Amino acid sequence: MVAAVKVRILGVGMGPQHVTPEVADALRTVDYVLAAEKADDDRLLALRRAIVRAHGGAELVALPDPPRDRSERLSAGGYESAVSDWHDARAAQYAGVLKERGGTAAFLVWGDPSLYDSTIRVVEKVRALLEPHVALDFDVLPGISAPQLLAARHRIVLHEVGKPVHVTTGRRLQEAVAAGMDNIVAMLNPPPERLDFTGLDDWTIWWGANLGAPGERLVTGRLRDVLPAVADARAAADAYDGWVMDVFLIRRDR
Amino acid sequence: MVAAVKVRILGVGMGPQHVTPEVADALRTVDYVLAAEKADDDRLLALRRAIVRAHGGAELVALPDPPRDRSERLSAGGYESAVSDWHDARAAQYAGVLKERGGTAAFLVWGDPSLYDSTIRVVEKVRALLEPHVALDFDVLPGISAPQLLAARHRIVLHEVGKPVHVTTGRRLQEAVAAGMDNIVAMLNPPPERLDFTGLDDWTIWWGANLGAPGERLVTGRLRDVLPAVADARAAADAYDGWVMDVFLIRRDR
Ligand SMILES: C[S@@+](CC[C@H](N)C(=O)[O-])C[C@H]1O[C@@H](n2cnc3c(N)ncnc32)[C@H](O)[C@@H]1O
Ligand SMILES: C[S@@+](CC[C@H](N)C(=O)[O-])C[C@H]1O[C@@H](n2cnc3c(N)ncnc32)[C@H](O)[C@@H]1O
Repeated sequence: MVAAVKVRILGVGMGPQHVTPEVADALRTVDYVLAAEKADDDRLLALRRAIVRAHGGAELVALPDPPRDRSERLSAGGYESAVSDWHDARAAQYAGVLKERGGTAAFLVWGDPSLYDSTIRVVEKVRALLEPHVALDFDVLPGISAPQLLAARHRIVLHEVGKPVHVTTGRRLQEAVAAGMDNIVAMLNPPPERLDFTGLDDWTIWWGANLGAPGERLVTGRLRDVLPAVADARAAADAYDGWVMDVFLIRRDR
Repeated sequence: MVAAVKVRILGVGMGPQHVTPEVADALRTVDYVLAAEKADDDRLLALRRAIVRAHGGAELVALPDPPRDRSERLSAGGYESAVSDWHDARAAQYAGVLKERGGTAAFLVWGDPSLYDSTIRVVEKVRALLEPHVALDFDVLPGISAPQLLAARHRIVLHEVGKPVHVTTGRRLQEAVAAGMDNIVAMLNPPPERLDFTGLDDWTIWWGANLGAPGERLVTGRLRDVLPAVADARAAADAYDGWVMDVFLIRRDR
């Protein structure tokens, strides 16, 4: 058994076009890359493989994703605890591999590790599991996030001169509006018809799906005018790529 | 005189280690790079030169920065209008060069163009100045921003699971606290002794200066405990690099 392992958490942005020189260098020096393999979607795994192959070709160790409890406990308000159990299961898997193999391992994170991503928290759990017998040291390198690519594609700044921008989840949209936010970025969104846009008719939306992918779609305009176009574009992105993720900025009317 | 020009606004992150493959490719194909030259600071210009040289070596056209009105009008609340005049002066300079040279020009933006940066707004002004005689088309490529590098260095996510993060300026800190924000990123900060941290004694701060530069400094802890260390680290970063910029996240105590 090893005495110490090193983990590198690497943000890869929205695809190979965003892999920074420091991330490429890191990939060339790690011993292997750890990745979750989801039963229903190996697209992200394929993307990771392509990125690893392009930068040194380290071995990719794919681990089956532990099942996630999406049932009763979620509706009973147990979202945080279900997520936490799932993180625990992941951490145990990773700890096993790291303990056996040692050396330096990388995790590739979609977008930026600092935004709606659990890798850092899972690695903290791995560290706790390995202590005190195996010392785990880790570092994090940033990557281009979805909101940044959204802004770039629409050629906008996320806020007016000197003003704030608020980043939240689709389900918390109205909370942000109620708190007086004027520039709201929403991520982890359900389809638009399941979002609550009450009172936002006059706001402007800059919306994007599958940014950086072949099926990328953009829509912008007054919310009241463009919601149907957003729903259509979301369906089109999904049909084109076989998956869909979207992000948007909304700005209060003045 | 030319009939059309193309402008590419390229985010370069916090230094050469963050120049993405798509930005590197763009640099190799532009005819020249436009850059502002500030009388009091050619550090950023030197960095731009190094990046351009590393990726194709396009000609760098440096233009003296128009003087910025920091006097009476600012104290009279004319900040937005002073900024706007300054943008106008910049835009006129750039329009002159673009009209004469034509082709494809790049602007290199520190960090990401979508966050507290005026390049997109200035280019929109240039386009208005050139119309209808010269058509200007532009695109934007994202770059790693200061808050992302802050989070990476501290190995944190900017928010708790599923919660929002609010990005604002140091001068608007108390506004964000009053609006109930729990995770606040502050940029464009004056020295900490000129910031209003009233009521935030128990909050946690993750602070960083000169991220990615040789003089980089990090401090974290309870605000009440670490403010003196922040002030010292800021002075140390300034002494080391000859300039200082800082960014921080504060999180409400629970
Ligand atoms: C689990 S979060 C990961 C965010 C990622 N860490 C980042 O920095 O952007 C997934 C959410 O990010 C956004 N997202 C990720 N990739 C996207 C893409 N290619 N196009 C649009 N939105 C995307 C969507 O809001 C999606 O629900
Ligand atoms: C004019 S804004 C530019 C922000 C940039 N567009 C970005 O994406 O980070 C300048 C502010 O960004 C932050 N900043 C930029 N570079 C930094 C660095 N190397 N270290 C810490 N903060 C930095 C500071 O808050 C600074 O006042």
